[in-house]
Amino acid sequence: MSDEATAFVPGHVTGFFTVSEDDDPTKAGSQGAGLALTDGVEVTVRPADEREMYLDGASIDVEPVERVLDALDADAVVTAESELPLGSGFGVSGALSLGTALAANRALGLALSENELVTIAHGAEVQSGTGLGDVVAQARGGVPIRLEPGGPQHNLLDAVPARARVEYVTFGELDTEAVLGGETDPIDEAGERALSRVVREPTLSSFIFASRRFAREAELLSERVGEAIQDVSEAGGQASMAMLGETVFALGTGLTDAGYDPEVCATHPAGAMLR
Amino acid sequence: MSDEATAFVPGHVTGFFTVSEDDDPTKAGSQGAGLALTDGVEVTVRPADEREMYLDGASIDVEPVERVLDALDADAVVTAESELPLGSGFGVSGALSLGTALAANRALGLALSENELVTIAHGAEVQSGTGLGDVVAQARGGVPIRLEPGGPQHNLLDAVPARARVEYVTFGELDTEAVLGGETDPIDEAGERALSRVVREPTLSSFIFASRRFAREAELLSERVGEAIQDVSEAGGQASMAMLGETVFALGTGLTDAGYDPEVCATHPAGAMLR
Repeated sequence: MSDEATAFVPGHVTGFFTVSEDDDPTKAGSQGAGLALTDGVEVTVRPADEREMYLDGASIDVEPVERVLDALDADAVVTAESELPLGSGFGVSGALSLGTALAANRALGLALSENELVTIAHGAEVQSGTGLGDVVAQARGGVPIRLEPGGPQHNLLDAVPARARVEYVTFGELDTEAVLGGETDPIDEAGERALSRVVREPTLSSFIFASRRFAREAELLSERVGEAIQDVSEAGGQASMAMLGETVFALGTGLTDAGYDPEVCATHPAGAMLR
Repeated sequence: MSDEATAFVPGHVTGFFTVSEDDDPTKAGSQGAGLALTDGVEVTVRPADEREMYLDGASIDVEPVERVLDALDADAVVTAESELPLGSGFGVSGALSLGTALAANRALGLALSENELVTIAHGAEVQSGTGLGDVVAQARGGVPIRLEPGGPQHNLLDAVPARARVEYVTFGELDTEAVLGGETDPIDEAGERALSRVVREPTLSSFIFASRRFAREAELLSERVGEAIQDVSEAGGQASMAMLGETVFALGTGLTDAGYDPEVCATHPAGAMLR
């Protein structure tokens, strides 16, 4: 096989998380929970002599994608179309990495397993400092709970058995690497409290409540994001912040009811998949 | 919450398997691999004072569903519509069990996690003798490889990262309990050989090749099923037997090309989901 192949990877907003460092990138990662989204990224891989990468028509360098292609020893043109902005807490870099791995495996006839491809994409994200838990959540779909960090050989996943309409508004970018490169103790402590709440009661309400509290306790809330969450609460809805981006997400019609003009999608019940 | 809720569970044909007994039903189960199917079962649960269960409009008793309702301490009317025949190797009893667990959790506001619900449905199947690996595969979707047996707390899953059109023809029923109740050494030996082949090369071709060889080596092939597989091979296609049913499944247009008039579906990329 040497045709092109396309994979779709759902977006993923993390509601809360902890940071687990490890020298082995397949063990490093994060605990936490989030929502896999029907808005996502479509990645097409075509074997070629020289590597090129395009996102929404523009040439781009994405370190974890380079690392995935290195790990697969693959030269290819990677063309991605994203319904979601980069750097705003939607797991776009994770989606690019995982989509490249899945599509390259098929386009180049590499015969790797799903876990192997997820492991490669997860490790590439961790080593690039661009994400810790998006890839494994995007591979699962739904409303994943990351009980233990790492790639598929080491982690432990569960999920909230629910679906929801999801609205979101993005005010700008946050640099994942800068936030995760700093002091993470307050994040870890708040993340562990949030996780034990959701484990005790794995429902959407408890997820969004725990996420909102985490954002405040971990001191990650910007003014604009805090205001929007407050607006949604006052309108009787449920919202929190997408980690890590200047993005507010709400369940149901939370942002609309509060007078915002949000993008609308839903939880994506499946994980990443070949087209 | 006390409204009704509906879940869809994909069908699942197992290509090959091993039998792992254990006193703890969450550890018992099987290794193996199969295809989750877009043809499946829709299960609606409505809270009620007395338990009733209907499949395609007819009253029916399904032991694992009873066990699921017992485990959830739930009284409800369970109404299921199946695109697939019972007792023919499509995991319909697993689908009924898992669909009941997911829908009851929502209808009755039980706040259990996905893993907890899958564990209950898996355990109910094992204790009823109606299945060993369908439930965990149906919860994952795609082309699941069961590397280690048991429910989500104990097993280890991987998958073939691929999608396919799937055709099938059913000649009749096989009694899972009768087959699994007998001598399983030849099954286990053949199943382990098939699994190591698919682990070495996790592709659809290798899955179907390993499945066909397993069916022969484990001596589970009936004459009619063997003939149909042979017909597909002679027409240049790939088919094997659904474990455990008098059912032949083929990739692509295998059965059509061999002159059969099959049902047509595809691999279902998502696992079981609420509607």
